[in-house]
Amino acid sequence: MVDFVFFLKNVLVVSLAMNLCLIWRLSHHNEENIAFSWGNLQQKLNNFNTAGKNNTRGEEVDVAQVSKRTIEVLKTTSSAATNDPDGGESNLVINLDHGDPTMYENYWKQKGEETTVVTSSWQHISYFSDVKNVCWFLEPGLVRAVTRLHKVVGNAVTEGRHIVVGTGSSQLYQAALYALSPPDSLGPMNVVSAAPFYSSYPLMTDYLKSGLHKWAGDAYEFNKNEPYIELVTSPNNPDGVTRQDVVKGNNGILVYDLAYYWPQYTPIILPADYDIMLFTVSKSTGHAGTRIGWALVKDREIAKKMTTFIEINTIGVSKDSQIRAAKILQTVSDSCENANQKEPESFFDYSYKFMDERWKKIREAVNKTELFSLPDFSHETCSFSGRTFGQLPAFAWLKCEGEVDDCESFLRRHKIYTRGGKHFGASKKYVRISMLSRDSEFEILIKRLPAIIIS
Amino acid sequence: MVDFVFFLKNVLVVSLAMNLCLIWRLSHHNEENIAFSWGNLQQKLNNFNTAGKNNTRGEEVDVAQVSKRTIEVLKTTSSAATNDPDGGESNLVINLDHGDPTMYENYWKQKGEETTVVTSSWQHISYFSDVKNVCWFLEPGLVRAVTRLHKVVGNAVTEGRHIVVGTGSSQLYQAALYALSPPDSLGPMNVVSAAPFYSSYPLMTDYLKSGLHKWAGDAYEFNKNEPYIELVTSPNNPDGVTRQDVVKGNNGILVYDLAYYWPQYTPIILPADYDIMLFTVSKSTGHAGTRIGWALVKDREIAKKMTTFIEINTIGVSKDSQIRAAKILQTVSDSCENANQKEPESFFDYSYKFMDERWKKIREAVNKTELFSLPDFSHETCSFSGRTFGQLPAFAWLKCEGEVDDCESFLRRHKIYTRGGKHFGASKKYVRISMLSRDSEFEILIKRLPAIIIS
Repeated sequence: MVDFVFFLKNVLVVSLAMNLCLIWRLSHHNEENIAFSWGNLQQKLNNFNTAGKNNTRGEEVDVAQVSKRTIEVLKTTSSAATNDPDGGESNLVINLDHGDPTMYENYWKQKGEETTVVTSSWQHISYFSDVKNVCWFLEPGLVRAVTRLHKVVGNAVTEGRHIVVGTGSSQLYQAALYALSPPDSLGPMNVVSAAPFYSSYPLMTDYLKSGLHKWAGDAYEFNKNEPYIELVTSPNNPDGVTRQDVVKGNNGILVYDLAYYWPQYTPIILPADYDIMLFTVSKSTGHAGTRIGWALVKDREIAKKMTTFIEINTIGVSKDSQIRAAKILQTVSDSCENANQKEPESFFDYSYKFMDERWKKIREAVNKTELFSLPDFSHETCSFSGRTFGQLPAFAWLKCEGEVDDCESFLRRHKIYTRGGKHFGASKKYVRISMLSRDSEFEILIKRLPAIIIS
Repeated sequence: MVDFVFFLKNVLVVSLAMNLCLIWRLSHHNEENIAFSWGNLQQKLNNFNTAGKNNTRGEEVDVAQVSKRTIEVLKTTSSAATNDPDGGESNLVINLDHGDPTMYENYWKQKGEETTVVTSSWQHISYFSDVKNVCWFLEPGLVRAVTRLHKVVGNAVTEGRHIVVGTGSSQLYQAALYALSPPDSLGPMNVVSAAPFYSSYPLMTDYLKSGLHKWAGDAYEFNKNEPYIELVTSPNNPDGVTRQDVVKGNNGILVYDLAYYWPQYTPIILPADYDIMLFTVSKSTGHAGTRIGWALVKDREIAKKMTTFIEINTIGVSKDSQIRAAKILQTVSDSCENANQKEPESFFDYSYKFMDERWKKIREAVNKTELFSLPDFSHETCSFSGRTFGQLPAFAWLKCEGEVDDCESFLRRHKIYTRGGKHFGASKKYVRISMLSRDSEFEILIKRLPAIIIS
């Protein structure tokens, strides 16, 4: 009998050891498989510290990039291996490097069938949506939804504009560069944006070593007497600041990236009224997976050339996603017009309160320590909501105060993955932290930040 | 009373005149608005007659391009204006230049609810689909559907392959060029394909004047001792021929475009087993509007680089379309496995019979005249259907026999818009005619072709 118990104990020990090995192996296997994801972008951006540099391809795995799946595996592993009172939370890696906008998911879960899209297999078969439109692959329903929402919110002029739809606003950015760069000029067109600038601009401009356009760096430092395209991102990614153009030369063409010019992120002051304006559902309603963006373009020829780019690049844009985006945008407009009547709160009420609460929490967390600081924003009155408030950006532009020179590496040692200032043409003392994650990650962030000490 | 009748008559005449004016104005307005559509592609291709030429941008309106909407307007106009016994059909312009695959619409209309996709507003919000996959934005459901369909049809090996999803196979073509062109070489990589080649290849290769790759023309004429990428399209667009690589150099990388390697177009002989193979739902099931293509890629690093291209270009691919495409492909697999049991005929039975009938009709029409000829194909037995037949291509590669040197212009004078041989690197005596149009246009084509005489 004792022998049998002894035998059983041995088997149990072997089995437990095997479990630990397997869990370890599993977590490393997953890490190896997924570490590259999304992060090639970041890895490549390491090559862009100097404006105009052309080495745009770095394919090595960036171990900084660990996704949610790894987090879950690590959590399982650490919970199993330790008796950590917080359930292993302190061992969790939280990845706030990218801006995956999952934070409005709960809002959409509350919505009923009026937001559901039903598509039969015979629908939307053709390449064409509306052959009378400059943008022939643009669904008429999306035109109506975009036009209505801008009117309801008052954040952009749509009268006298051509709408061009894109597979996200990234494609529209590239379409705008194509449309604005003369095909027959001697050298490529300069593309600039004021630092800190969106970290993907350099990569999207140069990844194909195009002879049409080239990244020329920080707009503040651009002093060539040459034609240029200036990207004006307002509110700005990464720092949330309201922007105007800065070069103010005679040969410039301005492209306004207004992805965040919505009333949950910033007070709406006036309807934007520029020649080329880019928007996306990813950040306005949180539907990144649909990959739908739109451009409002004053000049017909530029709208045509942007359409041509998308025609060559992807022969149009998914009809299914356009139709879904139209439904989502109409629902948002409905929620604004029905607020206080049929519906308890509009989408923008919900999302404003959501962002406001997150910003209060992160400011509280940062105020508890001397190590970090956040930008302050002056208050203005929003013409849409009537509220007076300062920016509530989709990203926190956090500064490491004192002696810490490389804020990204510093936070990484504390298992907070962020995108460092150098990727945005700025100091390494800054990092960009996504404010758009799910609650679980955000709560860990605000618990962990004030607990960090310099060791 | 007579005065009143006279008055009425006058009003009627004025009104009719006004009708005609308005109809004329409407048709011209429409023509002006839409004439460019899709056709910028063709217009630009005029710049590609010589391999390696770099003038890739021609934005002029190509009046050759008139879409269905114009056809309808013209029909209205001509019916109203004449007493033509065929209802004005002889005045109709039919545009068979592009391959809009609307011909299977009736099949899909017969299908019931099992092919309908229902999407709630909270679903597919994230950028990510499966972070464990090399292609992190690829929906697992699409992986299952693609793998199953290739197994059911037996047209491609999927074991040991990475699947990369694209916004149509155009994006995957560009992703493959990016992945296969070394970033640090002294000059751009040569890209070739045997003439007649797909007319969009030159444009997609050169439109951004990339320093990574350049169009180097007809593979039969490529004799440089330099690295190259050879596109092998089989069955070939435009002529339907089964293809192998032709350069057979030591420095070549092959990309197989297998968009038409499906049993309605060609006998399936063996599962294709190449390093890089491109497919698309546009031509396999006719769902061009979903913009979904996929690549089967043997080498993990190449799959990663293709994924990186799509990441930078459009940050992934519409989830909505991926999910819809998965449902459609599963329905096709179901229809094959249930044929003769629950379902009267499989999708490929339906589409084979459809293409077979169209080819019989166009051959009959062409045989009635000495002016034209069509290619002949040897018969082979299809491993999928067991049928023995010759190719039934998605395009007819029509030759003008005798003295007509410019077949495209000749047919245009007879109101049949096609794409001329020069766009495919071939003789102007050839044109490509879409076999994928709706019935109404196809019926006019086969009535009109044998009636044409040289005047």
